[in-house]
Amino acid sequence: MADEAAVRAQAEAVRRLKQDKADPDEIAKEVAKLLEMKAQLGGDEGKHKFVLKTPKGTRDYSPKQMAIRERVFNAIITCFKRHGAEVIDTPVFELKETLTGKYGEDSKLIYDLKDQGGELLSLRYDLTVPFARYLAMNKITNIKRYHIAKVYRRDNPAMTRGRYREFYQCVNDRRILDGMFAVCGVPDSKFRTICSSVDKLDKMPWEEVRSEMVGEKGLSPEAADRIGEYVQLHGGLDLIERLLQDPKLSQNKLAKEGLGDMKLLFEYLTLFGITGKISFDLSLARGLDYYTGVIFEAVLLQQENDHMEESVSVGSVAGGGRYDGLVGMFDPKGRKVPCVGVSIGIERIFSILEQRVEASEEKIRTTETQVLVASAQKKLLEERLKLIAELWDAGIKAEVLYKKNPKLLNQLQYCEETGIPLVAIVGEQELKDGVVKLRDVATREEVNVRRESLVEEIRMRTSRS
Amino acid sequence: MADEAAVRAQAEAVRRLKQDKADPDEIAKEVAKLLEMKAQLGGDEGKHKFVLKTPKGTRDYSPKQMAIRERVFNAIITCFKRHGAEVIDTPVFELKETLTGKYGEDSKLIYDLKDQGGELLSLRYDLTVPFARYLAMNKITNIKRYHIAKVYRRDNPAMTRGRYREFYQCVNDRRILDGMFAVCGVPDSKFRTICSSVDKLDKMPWEEVRSEMVGEKGLSPEAADRIGEYVQLHGGLDLIERLLQDPKLSQNKLAKEGLGDMKLLFEYLTLFGITGKISFDLSLARGLDYYTGVIFEAVLLQQENDHMEESVSVGSVAGGGRYDGLVGMFDPKGRKVPCVGVSIGIERIFSILEQRVEASEEKIRTTETQVLVASAQKKLLEERLKLIAELWDAGIKAEVLYKKNPKLLNQLQYCEETGIPLVAIVGEQELKDGVVKLRDVATREEVNVRRESLVEEIRMRTSRS
Repeated sequence: MADEAAVRAQAEAVRRLKQDKADPDEIAKEVAKLLEMKAQLGGDEGKHKFVLKTPKGTRDYSPKQMAIRERVFNAIITCFKRHGAEVIDTPVFELKETLTGKYGEDSKLIYDLKDQGGELLSLRYDLTVPFARYLAMNKITNIKRYHIAKVYRRDNPAMTRGRYREFYQCVNDRRILDGMFAVCGVPDSKFRTICSSVDKLDKMPWEEVRSEMVGEKGLSPEAADRIGEYVQLHGGLDLIERLLQDPKLSQNKLAKEGLGDMKLLFEYLTLFGITGKISFDLSLARGLDYYTGVIFEAVLLQQENDHMEESVSVGSVAGGGRYDGLVGMFDPKGRKVPCVGVSIGIERIFSILEQRVEASEEKIRTTETQVLVASAQKKLLEERLKLIAELWDAGIKAEVLYKKNPKLLNQLQYCEETGIPLVAIVGEQELKDGVVKLRDVATREEVNVRRESLVEEIRMRTSRS
Repeated sequence: MADEAAVRAQAEAVRRLKQDKADPDEIAKEVAKLLEMKAQLGGDEGKHKFVLKTPKGTRDYSPKQMAIRERVFNAIITCFKRHGAEVIDTPVFELKETLTGKYGEDSKLIYDLKDQGGELLSLRYDLTVPFARYLAMNKITNIKRYHIAKVYRRDNPAMTRGRYREFYQCVNDRRILDGMFAVCGVPDSKFRTICSSVDKLDKMPWEEVRSEMVGEKGLSPEAADRIGEYVQLHGGLDLIERLLQDPKLSQNKLAKEGLGDMKLLFEYLTLFGITGKISFDLSLARGLDYYTGVIFEAVLLQQENDHMEESVSVGSVAGGGRYDGLVGMFDPKGRKVPCVGVSIGIERIFSILEQRVEASEEKIRTTETQVLVASAQKKLLEERLKLIAELWDAGIKAEVLYKKNPKLLNQLQYCEETGIPLVAIVGEQELKDGVVKLRDVATREEVNVRRESLVEEIRMRTSRS
């Protein structure tokens, strides 16, 4: 604790020194007052001067978009549940120090909260570090969890759009990479930064990456060229076997470990019957610092068409890896808890699905309403409300137009627009006869149903579809 | 725009003036450097010095807690869907100016993000203002939406714990309150601040609220006493009728409008058969500034027991009201979009349910796994993996222990602990016979099932429960 306390005291001293000249708190107060004045002016006279937008890099989801997003979530959750995963949740922000020193060069993209007194906070940058903090805090060493939540990066995301055909997974291992760097002659101190350069190979040609390594990062041209030969390689079990025989790589302890585990992984993939979808790719590096073993990415391939011979990779939609050191960073005794995880990029998958739905002209329902309670004549608001209360109490999903005397045509049109399959119509005659007229919106067929059988009839008709 | 620009220029001038003495940016940079040094020390040498906690006022949810939270969500979502609501989503932060001037005295509780260049941002304080921004931005005047998401307040929440019996709703109308203030002799300029005082009546006795009104807020003692008489009143249609005859209140335009609508509301409540659960309560005020009409709160009543004669209110779990002016604040032409909404306090309801589950000793499952794939002898890892791949491909929720040679007893124990109802056991003999031994964990009965019928058998057995 001594070091930390010392640094804190030093910071405090510098702050006080500067304060003798001008109190930053004073300045902040002055500015706050003026901003408040501005806000009040804006509130009273300048109502229309607001910029009507969401913050840069964020978006709203409309009901239709939410319906599509729910499909994506359901597909993913179903898969997690099929494999027996539990779900957890953590706060949207963490203590700033919880995130410090976990992300390497990416740390500059973290959103910090303003210091308003109290703890220094940052918005979570991923779900992995909060998860590691959760494991260490609760001394959990064994859990299979999923977590669906937003993370925040001060990024300028370039959304690749296109039509996609199928997933494709690439796999590599940080130990193979590090072993490869060692045998290529990269100094230990440059492993991480050269790894960052390799990570750019999906966006840049090798020549540019090479010149970054040599020019900016001071790697010898010979070492760079040796790396250049390795990172072209991709394949399956055959490649693993070949590299295990590689005279240099096979002498490196880390690389040998990594290749051994990669071989085991491919044996499991064979048992699961999915080797065809996975490629061992020596150019895969992943950006984040905390990976310690296997790393992987799921990539979408563009839809083939007449103008293209080959399918082209258009972007990564999921990625992850093994991070055996992260939980230990939070543990008082540094005890390691081996972890492996994958993160799925919902936004990108969603945007692909959204395009597909638009192209297909499929009509997306945004509600699950089974029946609209309608009236054929005026002055039946009370009767509509009484009937809908009966239906709601029986668990039927029902709506009613909020107008006092809506036209029947408008009520039917509302069903067409929103996809409600049934209309329960009350009129003077129906009330007298103790029936409700049930109309099928699609076929336009109408039939009188005894009021006491209405719930059953609606249930029967809507369970079929 | 002139006023805004002027104020901005003024703020800039003040900032520059102060900067001549000492540059706050310089100070900030110095401090940042030291903090970075500290972080690096922490990252390299002091790994164990992290404070292992979530930020103040936040919490994690464990898998068990998530299972309970899901129940609460499902109950609420089912209700929203029954009434034909659509769902939307908005970002966790908004432009700071979107939130400015919407919350009155509560604004000080907003979390701001640090100015890291670019837009000034704040975490959302509720879902209402982002919703109003969404409506104005998309020119929507007609939508019935729900939105489930976290909101952020720099608060010191005092969580009331206790055993609760049932919900109870109180209703009032801002126009009735404002009319009441007017006829009691409260000056127009004091309406909102006196309303804030009335809002404290659920936490403070009338005497304290009165002395705040008179002492701190400068209201005349006579006006306070007149308010004191009104705010005692609560009832139903009878009280509404009485107040419509009240010689003073009935002369006030706002109060009359409010009472008229309240009467209509109670007529609807009668049609829905729920008047017994709703009390018209003149002391209900609600904290937020933006309400313009009916306001309401759902309150939990404490479980009756031998020591208590009456049930006591222990806290509000939901609240809302009409806010007809908010969307207009975002519209360039100030067009009004009438809105009414309710917000449900999930955290409080969750904590009540959590206590109830703990008290009942009910066993909560955190996964939906139908079957564990187990082995009776050693060296059957491959066979277990082959079988589970078959089950997964058929959509069966299945798990397997990650050990190479787990003991059968440990595999059965895992099922007991996690509530998995079935075990599919492979052994040498079963493999030879083309069967799998299916064990019912509860009854301990075992039966050999042909491998090709296994999926069907598991489906049948788990659909029953």
